[in-house]
Amino acid sequence: MIKNKKVNAAILIIGNEILSGRTQDTNTGTIALWLNSMGVKVQEVRTIPDVEKKIISTVNELRKINDYVFTTGGIGPTHDDITAESISKAFNLNYEIHKEAFKILEAYYKPGEFNEGRQKMVWMPKGANLILNPTSGAPGFNIKNVFCLPGVPSILKSMLGGLKNEIVGGEPILSLTISLRTVESEIASSLTDIQNNNQDVEIGSYPFFQAGKLGVSIVMRSEDQSKIDDCNSQVIELINKKNIEVVNR
Amino acid sequence: MIKNKKVNAAILIIGNEILSGRTQDTNTGTIALWLNSMGVKVQEVRTIPDVEKKIISTVNELRKINDYVFTTGGIGPTHDDITAESISKAFNLNYEIHKEAFKILEAYYKPGEFNEGRQKMVWMPKGANLILNPTSGAPGFNIKNVFCLPGVPSILKSMLGGLKNEIVGGEPILSLTISLRTVESEIASSLTDIQNNNQDVEIGSYPFFQAGKLGVSIVMRSEDQSKIDDCNSQVIELINKKNIEVVNR
Repeated sequence: MIKNKKVNAAILIIGNEILSGRTQDTNTGTIALWLNSMGVKVQEVRTIPDVEKKIISTVNELRKINDYVFTTGGIGPTHDDITAESISKAFNLNYEIHKEAFKILEAYYKPGEFNEGRQKMVWMPKGANLILNPTSGAPGFNIKNVFCLPGVPSILKSMLGGLKNEIVGGEPILSLTISLRTVESEIASSLTDIQNNNQDVEIGSYPFFQAGKLGVSIVMRSEDQSKIDDCNSQVIELINKKNIEVVNR
Repeated sequence: MIKNKKVNAAILIIGNEILSGRTQDTNTGTIALWLNSMGVKVQEVRTIPDVEKKIISTVNELRKINDYVFTTGGIGPTHDDITAESISKAFNLNYEIHKEAFKILEAYYKPGEFNEGRQKMVWMPKGANLILNPTSGAPGFNIKNVFCLPGVPSILKSMLGGLKNEIVGGEPILSLTISLRTVESEIASSLTDIQNNNQDVEIGSYPFFQAGKLGVSIVMRSEDQSKIDDCNSQVIELINKKNIEVVNR
């Protein structure tokens, strides 16, 4: 793998409960931060309902334009858990009992408790690789560049560790944040010049309100530390010139 | 407007800070709950970076297949705020100074403080309708079925009230939740039967972990209260048959 290659991912959140506003998604942040640390940049997130046709078309669109796709949700035992069957159809693969997953859950539950509902969770696309679940037994799965994880945040988190070796990233994306006691409009024009002079650094400007006072965080992101350092020295020059207080860096 | 028509919306979150995991989106929930109360169902959410080409193509895709599109983010004074210019291009409209917005901000700021950065916020697609901002002055805007709101959650919230009359919804989407002391696999098979018998009710099953105990919330959603009631009585029958404790309803 060439280390300078940019590696991209998309996240696909599957679940009516997010779209209705009933449940707040937190998996996006968890997956994005974990991927960043391995040099993978999330370039798109989509949230869609538990509708087979929509899952199939979205997965097929995203997997062609991203190095990796991570789905969350819809792999439990109930009727609204249709991710595994939909992914099978997206890849034109049989939807069938995964023998290894069956053994794992048979051993996980007490005798007699591996009932019909739970057995649904071992149905997967033919040839899927398992993603082990150290929290609650039922594995996720991976087919080609698509990784299917559960929706429950604590379970999802516990499964990422075991996936680390499956992901080949590029250069880690580095970032530097400097927080200022100012408002965006005071620095907007100078910051535009700095962005124009530093094309390889992505500069973000984010207003905040903390302890009753307004401020702005400037976030500089790049794969190249020396480019961040160059950019940062131009930001510091701006701060000194305008006599702006630094809240923290 | 025929009251039984289904009315759909998409939400488009614009911002690198959400994709990097730095910032947790909460605007999806705010907008979705507000729309639900007016009979508008969110059928898709997309989060994309501050990239003009991507904003243009996504807005143009979503506005054709949804009754309403709500964008959040990218309408501030800095270089990374490119939503208004991108939306102008998506609609092939001139990007120009909005005279009414100019007057509002000129009056909002103290003399001499309506600087270059702040003046950027009055540039909009030609003919845009303003969305007034009772919190921080700078308005959002609306073109056809696309409504552009800021990313800061408290400001966004304060602007929704003024938008109410612009949105024509269908029948409000009603919902009933019943929380049970059980696990999903215990009720999965019966719940599938109930879903099959109640096609006009969307039944969701959501495991939870509260005060050290597992449970499942059953959520029934429909525009028709009598259909929810029918469905609910079948769920209660199931609960009684299996002798499951109701945590709350």
